[in-house]
Amino acid sequence: MTDTRFGLARSFRSAQPFSLECGAVLASLDFAYETYGQLNAARSNAILICHATTGDQYVASAHPRTGKPGWWHNMIGAGLPVDTESFCVICINILGSCMGSTGPSSIKPATGLPYAMDFPVITIGDMVEAQKLLLDHLEIPRLHAIIGPSMGGMQALEWAVRNPDRVSALVILAATARHHPQNMAFHEVGRQAIMADPKWRGGNYYGLDDPPVAGLSIARMVGHMTYLSAEGIDAKFGRRLQKHDRISYSFDADFAIESYLRHQGQSFTDRFDANSYLYITRAMNYFDLAAGHGGSLATAFRNTRARWCVVSFDTDWLFPTDQSKAIVHALNAVAAPVSFVELATPHGHDGFLMDMPALNAMLSGFLEAVQP
Amino acid sequence: MTDTRFGLARSFRSAQPFSLECGAVLASLDFAYETYGQLNAARSNAILICHATTGDQYVASAHPRTGKPGWWHNMIGAGLPVDTESFCVICINILGSCMGSTGPSSIKPATGLPYAMDFPVITIGDMVEAQKLLLDHLEIPRLHAIIGPSMGGMQALEWAVRNPDRVSALVILAATARHHPQNMAFHEVGRQAIMADPKWRGGNYYGLDDPPVAGLSIARMVGHMTYLSAEGIDAKFGRRLQKHDRISYSFDADFAIESYLRHQGQSFTDRFDANSYLYITRAMNYFDLAAGHGGSLATAFRNTRARWCVVSFDTDWLFPTDQSKAIVHALNAVAAPVSFVELATPHGHDGFLMDMPALNAMLSGFLEAVQP
Repeated sequence: MTDTRFGLARSFRSAQPFSLECGAVLASLDFAYETYGQLNAARSNAILICHATTGDQYVASAHPRTGKPGWWHNMIGAGLPVDTESFCVICINILGSCMGSTGPSSIKPATGLPYAMDFPVITIGDMVEAQKLLLDHLEIPRLHAIIGPSMGGMQALEWAVRNPDRVSALVILAATARHHPQNMAFHEVGRQAIMADPKWRGGNYYGLDDPPVAGLSIARMVGHMTYLSAEGIDAKFGRRLQKHDRISYSFDADFAIESYLRHQGQSFTDRFDANSYLYITRAMNYFDLAAGHGGSLATAFRNTRARWCVVSFDTDWLFPTDQSKAIVHALNAVAAPVSFVELATPHGHDGFLMDMPALNAMLSGFLEAVQP
Repeated sequence: MTDTRFGLARSFRSAQPFSLECGAVLASLDFAYETYGQLNAARSNAILICHATTGDQYVASAHPRTGKPGWWHNMIGAGLPVDTESFCVICINILGSCMGSTGPSSIKPATGLPYAMDFPVITIGDMVEAQKLLLDHLEIPRLHAIIGPSMGGMQALEWAVRNPDRVSALVILAATARHHPQNMAFHEVGRQAIMADPKWRGGNYYGLDDPPVAGLSIARMVGHMTYLSAEGIDAKFGRRLQKHDRISYSFDADFAIESYLRHQGQSFTDRFDANSYLYITRAMNYFDLAAGHGGSLATAFRNTRARWCVVSFDTDWLFPTDQSKAIVHALNAVAAPVSFVELATPHGHDGFLMDMPALNAMLSGFLEAVQP
């Protein structure tokens, strides 16, 4: 008999009230998630993938709105580095997002209308507490591993600290334990761009078929710039002209990089909700794991019992290597078992999405070697 | 008898038609400029300061709109590194700007209305050719030096290449000979933010008392982020809260960096014109000095006869040291006399605006040592 809790395009409603760090309570929680591979009889081979800011549960299956392959389709599957022949991979749309899990576009029970800006401000910790409800529903007492790239790494860190008994191994990929003020600033610009769009309407644009695409597009362009390295941009685009053999002396997208960036902004608005962008980036700005532990990251890690693998990319200036090292140093300070590597890539922060043999080999080896 | 062409708050109209690189012709040109110090009898002690993207002619006197001291008041004056006891310093509001020189907010003679987006697209070369008209008016055949920080450095480079007989020395400060695609992209975001503001109205907002401040503010925030280093932001702001002793779980500017950035955006709109921002950043995106010389920067420099001083800042990621080195290498390739130094500062690109003893000493020494 098939367990319908597992498979693609799953959803679940938790009807119990859910308390948030800010003090607000959500009457219920919806989850949209996918699983790949089979859970073993001991229920001990599950790997949770925590997705990034604008990621989603379609980690290894086609995105229903864009039709594009899952964002980590090269990493997760049968015979791939995260091998679904061995592991049951779970990816959950995070709290606050817009692909089926509860977020600002969800209906507020008290009004029957979308929450919009009545949605309470959430934290990375709230995202993690929500995910636990779904794992309880799936009857998975302990995860073999959590893999968190980018903002997913923030979640993975919170997981290990909050639930040391529920996870055997952590992979923290191009992430940070403390959102850096430079990145807080870029996120603030993005939020201001959305809120400055008259079509944002204080967040109440749902159902009008006229969302704040201009503001969201600007926010995406700003964000996207932080995902790319200067070297990578120069190598891929340089000052190459997009169409003509000379500049047009106009404000057209003469250069390939200008055209590319406009496209990145516009296409993002087809798949993402502006209010979700506000809430998720707000959660990131609030993220400082040490702050809740007397300012000491080592103290935060003191009760963790997992094996750790921390990875950074040499051209990532969003979450640069020194931020990964800060995690490693704090883990060292409590004698936690941790491997660390900085990988070379021209792709900046987006390196984690690329097919990198060194990353693949390390990840598959680590996941196989970990003892439950 | 006082020569009224010299002094603070000067202006000049050149009534001769002015041809631009794009092929358009402006019927006349207005200049707003300031001079400090006395021109000597030989008219040989003039130093031209080329200002940056959003700079202006108020290099060493109070800004009429903001009341703040001139943007380089610590550098230029009696007894200061650029000593007005020895030199006659000239700073001209650039073509395309909005502080009195011809730009998109100027009146188009054919219509009697502001040019707005009918203003032709200009280049860094056009800015330089315009400045020559003013120097002719001032009867200055040859400059002792041109000092160009940031985009001013682009102008200084064009000056030396186009007019090797008219300048004895160049100081290129935190600049580049080729606008990097990463910076082209950040400028594209800024322009898109302005153009996405409904109040931009296709550029026709003059006289309505309702300019596109939201879009311009976003553009400024994006630009401002590129002026600061991650280290400098962390040292100055960190994750410090702005007002309260804990986060507010809201979209208020909880953090000092968020508040600072909003202020930077808003205050910029009091003193700058959105269309000027479009045109000037467009000129920067078009800037690639080698492109007009067979792709070889050394070829561009072949006929220059000036002494050069090139300076970069170690935390400047807008115009990082390797871009200064590219200039130096090309000058070396034609055996031009060039000094180069990378200075240490936590202030990123904005380092050039800070009071740096090492910079001051070098600049004053260089300017005194240069032979006309």
